Parts: sequence; structure tokens; C-alpha cells
Amino acid sequence: MTQIKNDLFIKACKREPIERTPIWVMRQAGRYLPEYRAVRDKYDFITMCKTPELAAEVTIQPIDLIGVDAAIIFSDILVIPEAMGMKLEMIESKGPKLYNPIRNVDHVNSLKSVDPYRELKYVLDAVSLTKKQLNGRVPLIGFAGAPWTLMTYMVEGSGSKNFSEIKKFIYNQPDAAHKLLDLLADIVANYLSAKIESGANAVQIFDTWGGILSPDDFAQFSLQYITKVISKIKRSSEPVIVFAKGVHYKLDDLASCGADVIGLDWTMNLKNVRNMIGSNVALQGNLDPTILYSPKEKILNEALKVLESFGKGNGHIFNLGHGILPDVNPDHLKYLVEVVKKESVRFH
Amino acid sequence: MTQIKNDLFIKACKREPIERTPIWVMRQAGRYLPEYRAVRDKYDFITMCKTPELAAEVTIQPIDLIGVDAAIIFSDILVIPEAMGMKLEMIESKGPKLYNPIRNVDHVNSLKSVDPYRELKYVLDAVSLTKKQLNGRVPLIGFAGAPWTLMTYMVEGSGSKNFSEIKKFIYNQPDAAHKLLDLLADIVANYLSAKIESGANAVQIFDTWGGILSPDDFAQFSLQYITKVISKIKRSSEPVIVFAKGVHYKLDDLASCGADVIGLDWTMNLKNVRNMIGSNVALQGNLDPTILYSPKEKILNEALKVLESFGKGNGHIFNLGHGILPDVNPDHLKYLVEVVKKESVRFH
Repeated sequence: MTQIKNDLFIKACKREPIERTPIWVMRQAGRYLPEYRAVRDKYDFITMCKTPELAAEVTIQPIDLIGVDAAIIFSDILVIPEAMGMKLEMIESKGPKLYNPIRNVDHVNSLKSVDPYRELKYVLDAVSLTKKQLNGRVPLIGFAGAPWTLMTYMVEGSGSKNFSEIKKFIYNQPDAAHKLLDLLADIVANYLSAKIESGANAVQIFDTWGGILSPDDFAQFSLQYITKVISKIKRSSEPVIVFAKGVHYKLDDLASCGADVIGLDWTMNLKNVRNMIGSNVALQGNLDPTILYSPKEKILNEALKVLESFGKGNGHIFNLGHGILPDVNPDHLKYLVEVVKKESVRFH
Repeated sequence: MTQIKNDLFIKACKREPIERTPIWVMRQAGRYLPEYRAVRDKYDFITMCKTPELAAEVTIQPIDLIGVDAAIIFSDILVIPEAMGMKLEMIESKGPKLYNPIRNVDHVNSLKSVDPYRELKYVLDAVSLTKKQLNGRVPLIGFAGAPWTLMTYMVEGSGSKNFSEIKKFIYNQPDAAHKLLDLLADIVANYLSAKIESGANAVQIFDTWGGILSPDDFAQFSLQYITKVISKIKRSSEPVIVFAKGVHYKLDDLASCGADVIGLDWTMNLKNVRNMIGSNVALQGNLDPTILYSPKEKILNEALKVLESFGKGNGHIFNLGHGILPDVNPDHLKYLVEVVKKESVRFH
């Protein structure tokens, strides 16, 4: 096993003492980087996901170019619905589309079972290859969508404004919904276990649509399945991060789901959350991604606010509160990374 | 002045003792009602806003058909940017579009000043006519967008996924942003004062996009201007309601903005909010609007949860946590109204 040279990210996940706060950013292997766009111009998004050499290349770009403290494998959460038999398309500037969305229990029953070593072998190959090419410089993060978020896409067929279809589904066909969520929880757990087996040093579960639910519905339709996923992941000491966007309620319950780290969006106050739950878990976040549109002086001030909000101590991984936007100037992200590396020393 | 026969809504806004909880719903004069669609089939949305007879007709429909305890004038928050000189179009199933969106201070300076009795006289005429036709059955609510939400539309030109343009605007041209917000605060205050003068018994300020801001930015770019609006509204005892969707933080600050009522979306817990701020203001909300897609049994259970969450006592106006969706069965809303009227008695 390769020793990781910069293991600040892993240590922060475990709330171990370190000399500064590590930083990575969601969607760091993405369109804001000209070097990523150069690859993307030649291949479509899904081909990039399915070609380990290309996935490894863009995964490593922000390590070299931006200087982040962790790599996250280039992929998409919707590879799971695709592996279950749904046709997936990525429509430029509009987002993903899953054809023939799920609307009843028969459709749920017709979905294929997924063995990650078979249907998703290309992701595992990308993880192994990236791990090899990283050569221990920084840790590698694997990820998956939370069952709730995957089901939302599978029922809506795409992103949504009002989420009418998924809400009709869970309120009128709760048995079918729970059946699908349970199936997804098993698949996600196996998939994340396989990523760890293939070399991922940590895994993140994205619950992008957790925040559209009321607190009771979140507990029933999302949190219990995240908890199930985490309990079933085969791992030695690889940390698990849960990022549930917009879930500002029941944070104490969320902190008890078995995750080592809770990711927070930019509407949360790190200090309050740390006071509430920070002794049990590490926190990741939470700069508003649009701050990167600002002049550098404001980026500095806002980064300091995030560091000060968490305060002195261990267990903080700096990140954006959501994915970096495609039209951000990469120099601004590079500046943020420098600022966090330099200024966070005095918080440790 | 006509005496209002059913004044439960006004009394609840003032936290006065009443025998049951009043209910109205956001967008109750809307597409889910076949009787509304019959009017809408003959006239476009903006013509309906600008024709007092049509606005009055659809405003009163849910009073007769659904039995809600208050009427809210049929209009749109974007009549203000239109009055300031921006071209407005309502694009079917896509939402509003403002042409030539604001991007700099010169553009801000070129906007027209607005006298509500001149440029927005058609709204005031609609308020007067509706008031007359309601004949004191229930109170009439007037409304406006919060300065922040209006500016967001004026800069983005429409709804948005990432709100990149408005964020670039406030972070790179904060002086222009504050100038526009200040101008909008004056216009909104005059407009709501004129609505009250024309017969509105209460006014609601919608901050639909407040929740996209970090807590600090919300205080700086939204809350201070809502506070200014409320301080400048000319009124005797007409209540002011503020609905800031997604603003789950700084609720205590929000409760100190001068509003009589705070509207809450469905991700909030009424009990917690009442414990925190409920002795200073009344609360409005907060059933998830998609619950109306459910079977009646679930609608009953979820309505009871909302009533129980607020608990015994005065100062609660039942509402949805956001606007009713166009494909809801009107019988389900009618059932919700019946349930709230019947079941809320034991909470008073």
C-alpha cells in the first residue's frame, strides 16, 4: 500500500491534530478548467466517465493546477441508474436526462440488479488507475448519490423545479418508493465498498435533493437509507462524508447516521453546527460557490469568515457549499486554495 | 368602511383570541382551478393583471369555490420592474422573462421612477373593485416582492438555477446593488401604502429568493431593505406579513424587521420557530404544497401535524409552505380547508 504524502484531508476527517486546514472543492474536475474543457471538447461526458484513462486525467488536473489536498474521482452519480437499465443522456447546459422515468412498482421490479464489479467496472478501473497515477500525493475520494437523490432523478427523469413527480410517487405509492430506496441502498453500499476495495481513501454520499423534503419526510425517505448505506459499506478506516444540501434541520440526527464528516452548504453557520454536533463528526464546507465571482479581496475575507466560524481546532475540511460553477476564473480558485493553506495555520 | 364579517385572518395576524385557525393559500387564484383556466384561456396573464374586472374575478374565485378565509389580489411581483421601464413577458410553463436585464449602475440610473397612482393604477383599481365585490366577506391581502427578490429577477432576467448573474452583480458592483435595492425599497413601500389606501386589509412581502444568500449576505442585501419597506409603509393597523422562502437562519432577526407575521416554508418546524420568536410575531404556514398530491387521509394527517406543531394558542395562520402547484386537484385543497376549519377548533 502506497503511503499518502499529504494526508491532511484524511486526518481532518478523523478529527486528528494537523498543522493547517485541508481544502478540496466539489466539481473540482470540471468545466471551469480550460484543461478539462480541452478533454471535454474531444469526448462526450459519458465517454469520459467510461474511459478510465480520461477519467484519471481530469481527476488529477486540479491536483496539479490548483493544488487541492484531495482528488475526487471524475464520474457521475447517475451511472447507477444507467447500470440498472435506464437510458442516460447528458444534455449540454441543461443537465442529465434519464429516459422512461419510474412511475410504478412494476417499473421498479423491472430494474436490473447491479454488481459493481461487472456493470460499473469502468468506474473501479478509473479509481485504480487514478490511484496509481496519483502515486500517493493526495488521497482519492470515491462518491455516490444518496438513495433519495438517485430515486428523485429516476422518477423525475431530470432536475426539477417543483419535484411534483417524486412527491406524487412517495405520497401515493410509498411501498414502491421504499422498495426502490432499499434496493438503491444495497447497490450504493456495494458500489462504495468496491470503490474502497479499488483504492478510494474516503467516500462521499451526495444527497443533493434532501432539502426538498420536510423534516419528517427526510427522516423517512432519505436519512434511514443513508444510515443503511453507511452501515453496510465494507471499509477499514476510510472516512465516509455525507453532504445533504439544504438539510438545515435534524442536523443532530444526520450526525448520528454513521458518517465521519457532514458536508454543509453556505446557508449554515459552521459555529452553530459545530456547537451542536461537532464533537461527534468533522465538518466540511461551506463557502458560497458564487463568492469565487468576487474580487480577490472579498474571496480572502469570506474564506477567513469560514475559518473563523469553525474556529480553532481539528475536524474541519474547507470546501465550497456546493459545486464550483463552470464560469468561475480558475485563478480565483487557486487563490482561495492558497489563502486557506496560509491563513488556516493559526487555527491549529 | 365595510365591516369584515369573517375577520379571523386579521385577528390571527394580531395574535388576538379566535375560535379556530384561519387558512388561505399562496397562489390560490391560479391554474389549478378550472374556473381560473377558463378566464386564462381567453386572456394572457399580463392582460388579466391589467384588467381590474378580470383580476377581481379570479381573486374572488377561491373564496366562493374553496372557502378560504382571505382573498389575495391577483397580480404579479414583476409589475414593479415593468413600471420601471423593463419589458416583461410571461412565457407559458417557463415563467417570467424581463428583457435587457440590469448589469451596471448606468442601467440602474436609467430606470424610471414609479408613482403607484400613475404607473400601477391598474393594480389599485383592481384592489378597489375586488374590495367592493367581496363586500366584506373576507379580508383582502395586497402584496409585493421584497427588494432583493425584485432585483434578482431584474438582474437574472428570469428565474435561475445558480443565480450567477445576481451574485456577480452584488459581489463586484455592491454600490450599484445597494442603490437599486434602496430605490426598490422606496417604490415597494409606496406601492404597498397605496394598496392599503385602496382597500387592502393586510400586505404580504414575498422574498422568494432570500434563501439563496448566506446569512451575512441576507442581512446586508435583503433584510435591511425589508425593514426599510416596513418602516415606510403608511398604515393604521393593517398587518404586514413577510415570507422569506428558504431563510432558515437568523429567524430572530427576521422577526425583528417590523412584520406582524412571518411566513415559513415546509422545511421549518413551527414549534421550534414559535419557541424562538413566536411571542413577538404571528406565524403563517407551512404545509408542503406537494402534500396536496396525496390521498385525503394523508392530507388530514399532515394538516394535523402542522396544527400540532404550532400547538395551542393564537397567532397561527394556516397556509402552504409555498405556492399551490398548477396540477393539484382542487377538491384536495377544498378538503384541506375543511379539515383545518374543523380540526383547529381544539387548538383554540
